[in-house]
Amino acid sequence: MDFASFITSVVTSFVIFVVLVLVFTFLSRRPGNAPVYYPSLLLRGLDPLEGRRRGSRSPVGWIRDAISTPEADVIAAGGVDAAVYLVFLSSVLSILVFSGIVLLPVLLPVAGTDHALDLQAAAGINQKNANSNNDSTPDFPQMERLGLGNVQSHSKRLWAFLLSVYWVSFVTYFVLWKSYKHVSNLRATARSTPDVKPEEFAVLVRDVPRSSPDETIKDSVDSYFRALHPNTFYRSMVVTDHTKADKIYLEIEDNKKKIARAEVVYANSKTASNPEGTKPTHKTGFLGLIGKKVDTIEYCSEQIKELLPKLEAEQRTTLRDKQQRAAIVFFNSRSAAASASQTLHAQVFDKWTVMEAPEPREMIWPNLSRNIYERQIRQVVVYVIVFLTVVFYTVPIAAISAVTTLDNLRKLLPFLKVVVDIKAIKTILQAYLPQIALIVFLALLPAFLMFLSKSEGIPSQSHVVRATSGKYFYFIVFNVFLVYTLAGSLFTSAKAIINKPTFSRIINMLATSLPGGATFFLTFVALKFFVGYGLELSRVVPLIIFHLKRKYLCKTEDDVRAAWYPGDLGYSTRVPNDMLIVTVVLCYSVMAPLIIPFGVAYFALGWLIAKNQVLRVYVPSYESNGRMWPHMHTRIIAALLLYQATMIGVFGLKEFTYSPILVPLLPISFIFAYICHMRFYPAFANTPLEVTQHELKETPNMDAIYTAYIPPCLKPDKLEDLDVFEDAQSHTTSRAPSI
Amino acid sequence: MDFASFITSVVTSFVIFVVLVLVFTFLSRRPGNAPVYYPSLLLRGLDPLEGRRRGSRSPVGWIRDAISTPEADVIAAGGVDAAVYLVFLSSVLSILVFSGIVLLPVLLPVAGTDHALDLQAAAGINQKNANSNNDSTPDFPQMERLGLGNVQSHSKRLWAFLLSVYWVSFVTYFVLWKSYKHVSNLRATARSTPDVKPEEFAVLVRDVPRSSPDETIKDSVDSYFRALHPNTFYRSMVVTDHTKADKIYLEIEDNKKKIARAEVVYANSKTASNPEGTKPTHKTGFLGLIGKKVDTIEYCSEQIKELLPKLEAEQRTTLRDKQQRAAIVFFNSRSAAASASQTLHAQVFDKWTVMEAPEPREMIWPNLSRNIYERQIRQVVVYVIVFLTVVFYTVPIAAISAVTTLDNLRKLLPFLKVVVDIKAIKTILQAYLPQIALIVFLALLPAFLMFLSKSEGIPSQSHVVRATSGKYFYFIVFNVFLVYTLAGSLFTSAKAIINKPTFSRIINMLATSLPGGATFFLTFVALKFFVGYGLELSRVVPLIIFHLKRKYLCKTEDDVRAAWYPGDLGYSTRVPNDMLIVTVVLCYSVMAPLIIPFGVAYFALGWLIAKNQVLRVYVPSYESNGRMWPHMHTRIIAALLLYQATMIGVFGLKEFTYSPILVPLLPISFIFAYICHMRFYPAFANTPLEVTQHELKETPNMDAIYTAYIPPCLKPDKLEDLDVFEDAQSHTTSRAPSI
Repeated sequence: MDFASFITSVVTSFVIFVVLVLVFTFLSRRPGNAPVYYPSLLLRGLDPLEGRRRGSRSPVGWIRDAISTPEADVIAAGGVDAAVYLVFLSSVLSILVFSGIVLLPVLLPVAGTDHALDLQAAAGINQKNANSNNDSTPDFPQMERLGLGNVQSHSKRLWAFLLSVYWVSFVTYFVLWKSYKHVSNLRATARSTPDVKPEEFAVLVRDVPRSSPDETIKDSVDSYFRALHPNTFYRSMVVTDHTKADKIYLEIEDNKKKIARAEVVYANSKTASNPEGTKPTHKTGFLGLIGKKVDTIEYCSEQIKELLPKLEAEQRTTLRDKQQRAAIVFFNSRSAAASASQTLHAQVFDKWTVMEAPEPREMIWPNLSRNIYERQIRQVVVYVIVFLTVVFYTVPIAAISAVTTLDNLRKLLPFLKVVVDIKAIKTILQAYLPQIALIVFLALLPAFLMFLSKSEGIPSQSHVVRATSGKYFYFIVFNVFLVYTLAGSLFTSAKAIINKPTFSRIINMLATSLPGGATFFLTFVALKFFVGYGLELSRVVPLIIFHLKRKYLCKTEDDVRAAWYPGDLGYSTRVPNDMLIVTVVLCYSVMAPLIIPFGVAYFALGWLIAKNQVLRVYVPSYESNGRMWPHMHTRIIAALLLYQATMIGVFGLKEFTYSPILVPLLPISFIFAYICHMRFYPAFANTPLEVTQHELKETPNMDAIYTAYIPPCLKPDKLEDLDVFEDAQSHTTSRAPSI
Repeated sequence: MDFASFITSVVTSFVIFVVLVLVFTFLSRRPGNAPVYYPSLLLRGLDPLEGRRRGSRSPVGWIRDAISTPEADVIAAGGVDAAVYLVFLSSVLSILVFSGIVLLPVLLPVAGTDHALDLQAAAGINQKNANSNNDSTPDFPQMERLGLGNVQSHSKRLWAFLLSVYWVSFVTYFVLWKSYKHVSNLRATARSTPDVKPEEFAVLVRDVPRSSPDETIKDSVDSYFRALHPNTFYRSMVVTDHTKADKIYLEIEDNKKKIARAEVVYANSKTASNPEGTKPTHKTGFLGLIGKKVDTIEYCSEQIKELLPKLEAEQRTTLRDKQQRAAIVFFNSRSAAASASQTLHAQVFDKWTVMEAPEPREMIWPNLSRNIYERQIRQVVVYVIVFLTVVFYTVPIAAISAVTTLDNLRKLLPFLKVVVDIKAIKTILQAYLPQIALIVFLALLPAFLMFLSKSEGIPSQSHVVRATSGKYFYFIVFNVFLVYTLAGSLFTSAKAIINKPTFSRIINMLATSLPGGATFFLTFVALKFFVGYGLELSRVVPLIIFHLKRKYLCKTEDDVRAAWYPGDLGYSTRVPNDMLIVTVVLCYSVMAPLIIPFGVAYFALGWLIAKNQVLRVYVPSYESNGRMWPHMHTRIIAALLLYQATMIGVFGLKEFTYSPILVPLLPISFIFAYICHMRFYPAFANTPLEVTQHELKETPNMDAIYTAYIPPCLKPDKLEDLDVFEDAQSHTTSRAPSI
């Protein structure tokens, strides 16, 4: 990539970003768009206009708001998870700012005043690096002069770069330690609030052993836990296989919606000219296209009348006969539940395994009843599939990065020649084509990984998101970062790698290839943050969809609400994508320090926009109290290790005598990771008793806590029916403790 | 080693064994020897004569007794730990018996009818194996004909050996699974007995955070635990640095003993001729040799009078001012203690770490107050030292095994020539010399490893013994088994190893050298079991020491008791030594099946004698309820893995096409180890609630439980002074909960 196309790329990105911000400023002031730009405020019953009025004072009002809003408000709006995500962004930002403050003023002059590249060009050395890059013309833009590549081998100037590696590493340790402490406190505070949360009184029990045939699982769970926790046991709820009941329930809900819609249509049809109105009708057959024509309201009411007794019968059958080997056990205090969830219950570990109960809204019911061996086997199978996916996705990606150079495209698709040869279009295409191909390609993956994670047998949505995020991270670092960097070299020296795939060889390979990729990744970061964040902030796509839906599809208030309901932040793809940028920027931070300002801009803008969106747009779909943090922390350290290993290789190539000085950094990183894990992680994996002992706001309503866990399709109509519900699960009605 | 010396060795061992058994049969019937042969019975207040009478009916009565005694009696006599040790011996015995039943009748004929060794000898091939062995004459005793070495390469007979490897592996899995289940039940039963055990009501708390200066540690522990466990907290005891108090206490005890002794001497001196008697005197200076001569009884009484107020003052100071950052917290029920010991208490893990309390008698007080970071660092340092010890002990051992061949000895120490050249002595020396050198050498190590394990900061004696046993196992397998086997090859091909120390190369090396060592290890096993067990059973050494002591040193009843007090089984060296035999026998089981009968004899005799000694001799010094088992289990599997890896190498050397069929055994072993660990281990690391819920025999006397943990030097004279003891630790006397 030459200098012109780099500048074009950055400038174009910036122009798009400015346009999108202007669009946002203009559109977000129109009251009609409030559900798109302020859905979170609307759902929390706040007045978006009040925010608009403040915002209208200046077009950058949202920036002021985002900066000034305290963390407590963020937690109130988006939960601890959102706050932790912001801590992640600001931590990386701090790492990059602290690194940049030292690296930019020191390294740029040191590199800029050396002449390695000039010397190479003058001597006419046909440098391998230059060749292996996409562009075959060895033109050295100003930028490459400002990197490690311009420093001669053996030079004493390398000391500055070597010490910079240490500086960046220690800045990272310092910031990460501070952040882990901060997040740990956030979590402790969130868990010790006086609010009554159902999941804090419950424990998930799996692997309930096969009881005797004349005792239901419910009874054996009850008698077991009542015997072990005589003073604190409240009641239990056995997990049932309610797929069939759920189907009937959804059918009823669907019919109810149809009636509501039909009634609105009917009311609207009562115009002055037709005071009776036309009753809406539909056909009963496939997709409403064939079959008998019926009056919608009457037909659906009848359907409901038919389905209701069916549902009731199914509910009874489900509760009694479809009990699974898992249960949720309720305790009458938070400490008792926390303590029970951490205590070994059975002598043999494959029976009565206990863990903290997830929130009711994030339960994955079908996974609860899988037994411990099935979970283990599923996990192994999923890991193997993920490994294969990560490793063999390289093949298509490498092919794409080889094909999508402009020259190749012109050769392969000759009809594009006319378009491609126009100078302006050529420059733009040359700047964006590989990156766009990459981004589109990556969009296909998350759903697949999410499916795999769910198949592992994980009981909660938040855990699935974390698992997906981890898999996606490995994928993205391996395939985008490593493979794109290595692709050129791989084709030339694939044989060498295959013959001797030793670790030191891979490090060498990386060290040789990395400098060439600097400009590619500069463009990649710029594209991601300008265009990505522009789209994110302006919400152009949701806006268009919302207006289209409201105009043509929505009939009732509920329909409109569904049309603008924003969903959550989508951590499973957002976090790994940010992690990729962290990895890229860290790895290039010393080699091409110019990437640091881009990284700073990415995370500063990212933090600003994410905070705005958390406060005004997204609605959390679960609350895991920051359990994502240890995951992010580990992966930042993984990126740091990759960076340190690469730098050892790079200095080795520069034939610098003192490069072994860098080696101790690797064990230091491992020790740091171990200490953080030992000190902070247990409180993320379990609930410490300290935080459960705080006073509650009110005496907990145990019935409400119990009801919160009943799936909607099994919920009795009246709260008083709870006992009926419970008795339906028991075989006998006696409650005497017996084991 | 030639065939004659092998036979000599085995026969000599056997003769020594028979002599020692006869000695035992004779001596154990004399009532005067009862304290040596039945100390455990005496201490439990049983009549050893009753046992003797039964035993006197036949000289092998003890064998009948050992076989017929049920496991419950073993537990009553020696605790669960002893029973688990017997399970270990019988498990290995079962593995070897099941293996032998198939391997001996199948493999011996298959090997014996082949001719590889004859062919080699005939062709005059100067086989490397034969050279690398100690003896340079390539004589092939009958025994080597019966091993894998006599089967020709590529032969179809190898199938029998290959399938035998599978048979041995699956027998091992099966027996280990059964045993783990059995031990798990033993532990569960032991932990759910209705007896009140103080350690089941207590929790050890370490890393107590620095409280405010005007609050004692005792107060902060009290208020913290009272707040978190309001209903179950009983009281707490802060660990103090009582070394000084202990010193004074021991001085007093020493003086008391001296008085008791002096009084006996005084009473004995009152003969008819001297009715007044002579008051015993001693000198006060160094070792009683110099200084003023004083009347012992008077002097010691005065000393005690002086020391008592000192002790009291020191006790007060210790309790108030020498509080350490650790405490033992008592709960009023077993479930509460079990639950508290498994629950995370503080948000940050380096504060308030909790674990199950060890028994009072096995507490290692100075280790309790070490903080979590110190423990980690100490552990790392100790591991490094152990690693260095294990690896660099090879140097002296290899030297010894090179020097202690008879030819070398004659060359190095010419004055031995006269002795050595006598035919009979030569044969015996040739048989035993290397083995004796090895055994003496190994005797020096355990104390050092015990010291290292204690330095790690482990809080209980039983855990230290396990840690020592683990270290000793690594040492013994690496140094005795691997190094002795490899020593010859190492000298010839050290260069090759150093240049490319890859795993496959090491396996190959092992495979080449192992067959040569078969006879050495046969002799080693025979020597160990005949002579070792003979000494163990006959207790010749303790017997002599006891009689000498009683005659010349013991004055009082207490002195006599101390002279025969038997101590415990000494698992820290006993278990690794047995494990070495397991490793050796497993590794040679298929290569030289003749070793199996020796292994069977070793473990059968071992089980018999250990059971006899457990029932009649040894007294357990702690009870860990079988926590040694997971440790043994893991190491048996390690031995199995070593065996499987070696066999893969051996078959590779035989150029057998189907040898890769063995490779799946390695992952199968890992999976088996993982499943066992997942299923059974948690109940060994923690106490399951299931076992704590059994009814107690009586309402626990909480004061007695509390008192059990007071170190003797701090114990108040009267039980009513307990509150004084406790108040001395608190700064304030108020007990209101406050955090």
